[in-house]
Amino acid sequence: MTIPDLSSGQFQLVSNMLSLSIAAMFGSFLFFVMSRQQLSAKYRPAMVMSSLVVGIAGYHYWRIYASWEHAYTLTSTGTYVASGSPFNDAYRYVDWLLTVPLLVAELVAVLALPKVTRNSIMPRLIAASAAMVALGYPGEVSGEAGVRVGWAVASTIPFIYILYVLWGELSKAAAKNDAGTQVLLRNTKLLLLGTWGFYPIAYAMPLLGIGGAGALVALQVGYTIADITAKCGYGFMICAIARSKMAAEGVTVDEDASVLA
Amino acid sequence: MTIPDLSSGQFQLVSNMLSLSIAAMFGSFLFFVMSRQQLSAKYRPAMVMSSLVVGIAGYHYWRIYASWEHAYTLTSTGTYVASGSPFNDAYRYVDWLLTVPLLVAELVAVLALPKVTRNSIMPRLIAASAAMVALGYPGEVSGEAGVRVGWAVASTIPFIYILYVLWGELSKAAAKNDAGTQVLLRNTKLLLLGTWGFYPIAYAMPLLGIGGAGALVALQVGYTIADITAKCGYGFMICAIARSKMAAEGVTVDEDASVLA
Repeated sequence: MTIPDLSSGQFQLVSNMLSLSIAAMFGSFLFFVMSRQQLSAKYRPAMVMSSLVVGIAGYHYWRIYASWEHAYTLTSTGTYVASGSPFNDAYRYVDWLLTVPLLVAELVAVLALPKVTRNSIMPRLIAASAAMVALGYPGEVSGEAGVRVGWAVASTIPFIYILYVLWGELSKAAAKNDAGTQVLLRNTKLLLLGTWGFYPIAYAMPLLGIGGAGALVALQVGYTIADITAKCGYGFMICAIARSKMAAEGVTVDEDASVLA
Repeated sequence: MTIPDLSSGQFQLVSNMLSLSIAAMFGSFLFFVMSRQQLSAKYRPAMVMSSLVVGIAGYHYWRIYASWEHAYTLTSTGTYVASGSPFNDAYRYVDWLLTVPLLVAELVAVLALPKVTRNSIMPRLIAASAAMVALGYPGEVSGEAGVRVGWAVASTIPFIYILYVLWGELSKAAAKNDAGTQVLLRNTKLLLLGTWGFYPIAYAMPLLGIGGAGALVALQVGYTIADITAKCGYGFMICAIARSKMAAEGVTVDEDASVLA
């Protein structure tokens, strides 16, 4: 993939967004690690998964930042031009391959469903979300429109299956919660759908003939905002669900902490 | 932005201050992480937020230090001249965008207010402080006086709102505390006001025609001292408030720690 020349402002905008993401991911990591002890034991696995998601993503953003800095050279006129070193966007796919299954597992975990239900739903969601990411990649790296569309269709099948499980089976299993928790659950699923909706749009951009410096910058900034929302924001929602469920169960943080670690 | 030539002493002074800040931020981070377990459960969220603030700031000072070192080249005459690589001050704004909302949230959290009051005050303070930082940035990067003043005014509106909430609603909600805690709370608010007061002065310097090597060094040293005070010093004040409240509640650290981890 050849990368277009960028103005100083365009290059810095992407650099700063990538750095913001590193800070947001590792900041959220610290929060999830430390505040899992404020939750009842049964909600802690969800917080552990949230920690893994943002920890892994923080690592990948560190790599993406370094790859971005190496891919460009500042010229004496103040323009940034390709250095010849490739900008490795595959870090994003490797990241998603690990974090997307964890994100859906997180939602199942925070519901603290009966073991039988959980053991039925969780493996199917994990397999489907890993398949969704893996099937998207061959299309992402192909310059040929036909190949791109083919893999996009293949990747959409597990995506639709995930939506079916989340809105169908999982919603049914979660229906026993109090009204406040149900609102949080619905918002979390909408957050997930809304942020995940950005990725296919980015994927389709080359097919629509959108390219050049502006498109590259928009894509990197868009991916970064979507990732921060879908990982950090989503993790905070999961934490709020756990607290809401604890409140409904009559467990306060105080009472709980005295018997926990 | 062109950066002025610096003497060896000027360059080293800024380098050393940035390094001091990295040490102070990460040192405070370790302290807040470890000592949160000496506090009752209800005061721990405030310590978690303190940890996040100094952890995120430590990361950004690490980046600022690297950017500073790359922005200058040592000449054979012992002077430091611009290397051509930009000195990226945007890291400061990205840092403030994440940490300033956390700083105000920290103060609300340590008060351990009833959930209804907290849920009313906290989102407004977080939104106002993020808006304050975001509205300041377009002015900061503009060389034009009119643009700079316009954004400064826009940024001042949420700042005044924050002061109003802190001195009005929050003080009322905090009035139930014992005399010792009230003094600490007042001092913390004054610390916040005093350190935050430095940033608009720095922002106004180009408008007043103050520039050159001396101004650049004064600005970087000033920002660094203000950040260490407003983040590390402030975090220690928050910790003191939590201990003072625990003492007033008759909970000693020792008794408490024996049942906690």
